[in-house]
Amino acid sequence: MSNSVSSVDIDSLEGRLGYHFSDKSIVLEALTHRSYAHEKKNKQNYERLEFLGDAVLQLIVTEYLLDRYKDYDEGLLSKLRGYFVSEGFLSRIAIELKLGEHILLGKGEKASGGKYKESLLCDIFESVVAAIYLDGGYGFARDIIIRHFGSRIDEDISNSSFVDAKSELQKISQRKFGTLPDYTVLDEKGPEHDKIFVVRVDVETLVSEQGIGKTKKSAEKDAAKNALRKLGNEK
Amino acid sequence: MSNSVSSVDIDSLEGRLGYHFSDKSIVLEALTHRSYAHEKKNKQNYERLEFLGDAVLQLIVTEYLLDRYKDYDEGLLSKLRGYFVSEGFLSRIAIELKLGEHILLGKGEKASGGKYKESLLCDIFESVVAAIYLDGGYGFARDIIIRHFGSRIDEDISNSSFVDAKSELQKISQRKFGTLPDYTVLDEKGPEHDKIFVVRVDVETLVSEQGIGKTKKSAEKDAAKNALRKLGNEK
Repeated sequence: MSNSVSSVDIDSLEGRLGYHFSDKSIVLEALTHRSYAHEKKNKQNYERLEFLGDAVLQLIVTEYLLDRYKDYDEGLLSKLRGYFVSEGFLSRIAIELKLGEHILLGKGEKASGGKYKESLLCDIFESVVAAIYLDGGYGFARDIIIRHFGSRIDEDISNSSFVDAKSELQKISQRKFGTLPDYTVLDEKGPEHDKIFVVRVDVETLVSEQGIGKTKKSAEKDAAKNALRKLGNEK
Repeated sequence: MSNSVSSVDIDSLEGRLGYHFSDKSIVLEALTHRSYAHEKKNKQNYERLEFLGDAVLQLIVTEYLLDRYKDYDEGLLSKLRGYFVSEGFLSRIAIELKLGEHILLGKGEKASGGKYKESLLCDIFESVVAAIYLDGGYGFARDIIIRHFGSRIDEDISNSSFVDAKSELQKISQRKFGTLPDYTVLDEKGPEHDKIFVVRVDVETLVSEQGIGKTKKSAEKDAAKNALRKLGNEK
């Protein structure tokens, strides 16, 4: 397949995004790398859209975090936001959406494997977000982004090392109820070198969750994570 | 005047902003410092709004720059955006809007002169932007921000050292017309140690602007700035 504009498979991209562009020229601009524009003597490449998309994404992620994580303080939210708009995170989403397949690259850039560079994938993701924003408005852009990576954000938060689950749960419990979470070892199985602990954490009478782990501490942490998830879902 | 919530002069703030809040509780939250909330045992302070406002402002500034400075490349736009959402810049705007007068601070913070701290003023500006955004939507927030600091952005750009006016003009001229700007010394007055140069720059036949300076170079720079402003206004 030659890399001409007409050969870009917009349909399959639209299908994967779940969004139909009214203005196809804007999605073409979003996919056009500087090297390709230069070769074809086009004026437009994705860089201005990428600059816009970065800010649109920042707002989408901010609103999502504020809405879902009502008890997190601003310091933690800032750390999380920084992570979810980082190159590493966004390029993973770009890979899932197979955006690399649609990038229009110049010959030199193609030869150097540009399609698969993390920073390029992140750029393209941002420019595609901007294209949706300009074509359909903020509401569409937000809904599509959240549909594609809302659950990923939640997963990464619950698995991440950003959030020390036990201290986070303690903060919430103190703020909401003025009490500390209460941990109880329910079970301790197996031989000394291969134990399994089962721990329950109670936050007042509102939440009671279990966790397991190879140490008491890791079982407590697991229980705290589950309790946080529970509290998050109830908001 | 005691620093109670009822004593906050919302009217004069609204007058200065040119925006009337439907929901007064949101603007009170935007003005409430953690120290005050703590003293009054309020749950809400401005920190979550500040976190949101930061992202809203980022998008507003991004769209403004993209719209006004169509010929600037993404690298320069990024630098400019960074400056216009910086603490230094935002606290100046906060001072012009007299936001410091409205901040609700705890006694200790007040005694330490917290009202006038740059970072606090910047925070409050961001939280007020978020309050307008939540109360009235993005369009209102954008229009108010641009009304208050659009011209300031333009001034700072034309006076700033971010933009090397001569090379910027050269880039635009090459991109648009495939030619270089043409500088002509029109006049050279005064004694050797106190000369004044008058220079004209021509960009094709589209723009012809003059500049003055104590050296030929500074007069050229001044002419280039004027030409850029002209090109900017014509977009």
